[in-house]
Amino acid sequence: MGKILIKDCTIVPISGPVIEEGVIAINDDRLHYVGPAGGVPAGWQADTVIEAGDMVALPGLVNSHTHAAMTLLRSFADDLPLKQWLEEKIWPREAKLEREDIYWGTKLALLEMIRSGTTTFADMYFHMDAVAEAVVEAGLRACLSQGLIGFQDRGGQRLATGVSLVKEWHGAGDGRVTTMLGPHAPYTCPPEYLTKVAETAAGLGVGLHIHLAETKEEVENVRAQYGYTPVALAAKLGLFELPTLAAHCVHLTTEEIALLAEKKVGVAHCPESNLKLASGVAPVAAMLAAGVNVAIGTDGAASNNNLDMVAEMRTCALLAKGITGDPTVVPAHQALVMATLNGARALGLEKEIGTLEAGKKADLILVNKHQPHLMPPHDVEANLVYAARGSDVDTVIVNGKILMAAGEVKTMDAGEIYAQVMKRAGRGQKKFHLLPRLRG
Amino acid sequence: MGKILIKDCTIVPISGPVIEEGVIAINDDRLHYVGPAGGVPAGWQADTVIEAGDMVALPGLVNSHTHAAMTLLRSFADDLPLKQWLEEKIWPREAKLEREDIYWGTKLALLEMIRSGTTTFADMYFHMDAVAEAVVEAGLRACLSQGLIGFQDRGGQRLATGVSLVKEWHGAGDGRVTTMLGPHAPYTCPPEYLTKVAETAAGLGVGLHIHLAETKEEVENVRAQYGYTPVALAAKLGLFELPTLAAHCVHLTTEEIALLAEKKVGVAHCPESNLKLASGVAPVAAMLAAGVNVAIGTDGAASNNNLDMVAEMRTCALLAKGITGDPTVVPAHQALVMATLNGARALGLEKEIGTLEAGKKADLILVNKHQPHLMPPHDVEANLVYAARGSDVDTVIVNGKILMAAGEVKTMDAGEIYAQVMKRAGRGQKKFHLLPRLRG
Ligand SMILES: [Zn+2]
Ligand SMILES: [Zn+2]
Repeated sequence: MGKILIKDCTIVPISGPVIEEGVIAINDDRLHYVGPAGGVPAGWQADTVIEAGDMVALPGLVNSHTHAAMTLLRSFADDLPLKQWLEEKIWPREAKLEREDIYWGTKLALLEMIRSGTTTFADMYFHMDAVAEAVVEAGLRACLSQGLIGFQDRGGQRLATGVSLVKEWHGAGDGRVTTMLGPHAPYTCPPEYLTKVAETAAGLGVGLHIHLAETKEEVENVRAQYGYTPVALAAKLGLFELPTLAAHCVHLTTEEIALLAEKKVGVAHCPESNLKLASGVAPVAAMLAAGVNVAIGTDGAASNNNLDMVAEMRTCALLAKGITGDPTVVPAHQALVMATLNGARALGLEKEIGTLEAGKKADLILVNKHQPHLMPPHDVEANLVYAARGSDVDTVIVNGKILMAAGEVKTMDAGEIYAQVMKRAGRGQKKFHLLPRLRG
Repeated sequence: MGKILIKDCTIVPISGPVIEEGVIAINDDRLHYVGPAGGVPAGWQADTVIEAGDMVALPGLVNSHTHAAMTLLRSFADDLPLKQWLEEKIWPREAKLEREDIYWGTKLALLEMIRSGTTTFADMYFHMDAVAEAVVEAGLRACLSQGLIGFQDRGGQRLATGVSLVKEWHGAGDGRVTTMLGPHAPYTCPPEYLTKVAETAAGLGVGLHIHLAETKEEVENVRAQYGYTPVALAAKLGLFELPTLAAHCVHLTTEEIALLAEKKVGVAHCPESNLKLASGVAPVAAMLAAGVNVAIGTDGAASNNNLDMVAEMRTCALLAKGITGDPTVVPAHQALVMATLNGARALGLEKEIGTLEAGKKADLILVNKHQPHLMPPHDVEANLVYAARGSDVDTVIVNGKILMAAGEVKTMDAGEIYAQVMKRAGRGQKKFHLLPRLRG
């Protein structure tokens, strides 16, 4: 840490209009100044100066829903009916994953996230202490929850593991790690279990991370079994009295949309996963119009198949227009807000991150705008949303620490990660050799 | 040119199964051998050897519909209603574009295309001789057509310009340039003009490149005016008796789909442009099931806003699943076929390009598979379609010539292109300075 000065960049602060030829001053873990050149307080001296004339600065992207370690299952099974994909491919493979597999799969995910500009993510999986450990080492910010399945007799044991995660890891890594409880979904957690999880979360002072209304079958089955749709059931059981992060929310009624807005539920919209698994298309424009806090997530790499929030933001904006027939919905600035501030709010972190404003945590990315696909620079926000790629991210700073500079990740060893992942993915090492041009 | 040996790569030939640890031998402009190591004919000696242990080789991508010079209008106007976008923003700006603007806008497009793995594209715009000139210089392959508007009294003059393009440029650049006539659309070309254009194309021995059934309004207006839908009108006027490349085809009946299959019309599916302009979603799965040759295109950079065929292929595959509710449609291999062989066929080039087979032209790309988002390599085709980015393309070869190696474009001067584009886009040069890390 220390004092970093980022000079001469185009700033997209999200909280206000674009600033040309701007300057950002970072004091330890916080933004000290964000604005036009010349506004840095007199006497303030940087330890590190970043010449950023080629760059656009914006808040780090927030991936509001993923299962990081599922990178191990990237392109392991695709183009199959959902039931067959889950039951014959994903679940049997997941059942074999051990703690060290989760650790290394997560490491690969963190490397991919840093490289493509994600600085904060919300994760739900198992062996989450291994995820927390990897996050603390790699330097990102994360909101972690142990996935809780309420069926079978191990529901209580799983909840205890989830509680341990909160008690042992909440606030770790200089506050970069926060936690929630993660009841997987109403179709995997019976009502009495959901109630118990909510009561436990209330006692711990943390929120809930849950999958809701992902598929039409889920909605129909939950309603048939319990008499309520997933969203209505969650509301009835009091889940929404706690801060709730609800992934997917694809199949909703107008009343449910109003309820999500009223209860300030954070929705993690995962457009690419919903398309790939043919779950449908969430009513994003309607949710935004109703005042729902809609964030963006990639979901796991088995159903995406990457963790690229730049691409996800683009898909979100394009898909909303195509589905509604209205090219004015989810304009570029809105998509950027969804991928930053709305994500921060969905994770309960909007006071600390999500915009570039003095006083907030120094979580930001620099995107290299001198690329053929980003020229000419008519509109920097439109270029970021509609033309940019994750690979355009040049520099990543989290909590005032430089995690990547000029495309080089400083906090991780790519070669070691690849070797571990190849082994754990059962791919052998035959074809594995690193060339000098390999970057973090 | 000369003899190039590409060693130890994973080969996705499209025409057959994936080959691990394969070898590709190139003799001047043609593929001499594609297959397992050890199969190169005895006595054959390469001038240039590419060590490609990190790479996946596949046919160069074919962008089957774009307006290259519209890079000048990238992010110039977005998120507007279609009529306002066209009439208040795009058309007035286009009216000011002169020949040199088209040349430099095209140069930028070619740089972007090479960088993201496109080796062949179909273009329809104006001042197409400038486009042809840029293509010949840059080394790509292209199928070019002057856009023809039949209204006003300049229809005949435009057709004469289109004919000149065919006569002067067909076969240029060692055969890399081919041509078509480009009647813009049934709503901009009256029936008698379309008939005249088709007769002229028949006389010249070239095909037609046309926009068909892009929006619901177009379909309704054409039917109201002429008594036929755009596709039915084109068929009735005899257009489909010629090789026809039809962009968009979003709004189709089952009968029209059958007709497109029967007449072997090449459809350029442009999913991102169709989403962004809220035109709708083309019935890709139904077209493929009916035997239509569906290729993929980006459309122009004003409505996309990039020319990245890797991203377009991904959007095509994801969207088809989400819209049909069937995760098995457009599987990874199919998407790759659409972006390569189907594109080649739509441009009348399937005997020369579109697959990696000995005897075909040496048009291929190498994708760097050692990236966090492409690890582990469970399924190379799924990784290419669902996880890869245009920036993963490392090497591009067209007609046996290396246009890009290790990310460096050899045939173009990026600095000069950016400077010209900044000036011509009216962005001034104030903020423009090149750093050493800028690549072609
Ligand atoms: Zn999920
Ligand atoms: Zn077009």
